[in-house]
Amino acid sequence: MTMATVNNGVNVQALLDAREALKGAPEAAQFTWRASCKWQDGTHSKTDVGGFFGLGQEQHHKTETSFDADHPEIFASNDNGITPIEYILVGLASCLTAGVAAVAQNRGVQLRSVESKLEGKMDIRGILGIDSDVRNGYDDIKVTFKIDSDAPKQEIEAIVAQSQKRSAVYDVITNPVNVTVEVV
Amino acid sequence: MTMATVNNGVNVQALLDAREALKGAPEAAQFTWRASCKWQDGTHSKTDVGGFFGLGQEQHHKTETSFDADHPEIFASNDNGITPIEYILVGLASCLTAGVAAVAQNRGVQLRSVESKLEGKMDIRGILGIDSDVRNGYDDIKVTFKIDSDAPKQEIEAIVAQSQKRSAVYDVITNPVNVTVEVV
Repeated sequence: MTMATVNNGVNVQALLDAREALKGAPEAAQFTWRASCKWQDGTHSKTDVGGFFGLGQEQHHKTETSFDADHPEIFASNDNGITPIEYILVGLASCLTAGVAAVAQNRGVQLRSVESKLEGKMDIRGILGIDSDVRNGYDDIKVTFKIDSDAPKQEIEAIVAQSQKRSAVYDVITNPVNVTVEVV
Repeated sequence: MTMATVNNGVNVQALLDAREALKGAPEAAQFTWRASCKWQDGTHSKTDVGGFFGLGQEQHHKTETSFDADHPEIFASNDNGITPIEYILVGLASCLTAGVAAVAQNRGVQLRSVESKLEGKMDIRGILGIDSDVRNGYDDIKVTFKIDSDAPKQEIEAIVAQSQKRSAVYDVITNPVNVTVEVV
């Protein structure tokens, strides 16, 4: 009997090797991710992401990418890009999805498709300063996955739960992060 | 004597009018922001952002935008997009920048340029599961603004502080948000 080869496109062996290597080299595990933002006009800005620091040295993405953000027309803006708060959903969706693929690969589960819908609820009376009891950000985010695979639903749920448990973006959203803002 | 007209491109009057209108209509202030994500291969995904709900009805951005995310080559991935955790910096940068422009407009301060650099520090021993005392996400994010304006530095600092105080993304990152993940 031959085992079907599971291939979700994730090189799990490389990740397991990295885990072994970094166990003895905690300083190489210190990463700094970076972005540079330039105001354009009104609420429109462009943010560039290109280089970062990790494994003890400067690293570069294959290409530098620029992201437009703006407010929508119903806020009397020009809608030259998605709103800043929607970028949070992009980060969460992609982090959990990459995790699902990696965990499934590690557990020998072949995926055919992984789709998710995200909804973030926000009461804009917070950002408008109408009611100081209303927070500025999301009250609540709901992520719904639809995954096509031969694995039983229970196994798929366990894969999604493990992805959540190891997700950098899920951690940032569900737990407080210290942010310092300075003017030079 | 004539006052110079301050124009940062933000329609502050429309925002003040919205504040007045929403004071008496809290249900119109309930927004739902959305994203849909599709796994591509490996750690690569595409997330689409187009429609949202607010002011009591369905709303649409002028265009639907698709965002690629992936892991970099040093994690044995194909780097088909920035990493999910970098999208958090894009959201934070653009949210604070839009706020700076809006607050400056409201205070009658003309801006010539607003630039910011963001750095997010992360110990990847968290996501690799090497040390359970290391968190998955950012330990710390630093935002450094460089703003060109005739206003005194103290006034610029007060504008940046007010932007922080009203920023949806700053709130999401610095405070916990409830996230529910389901599989259908």
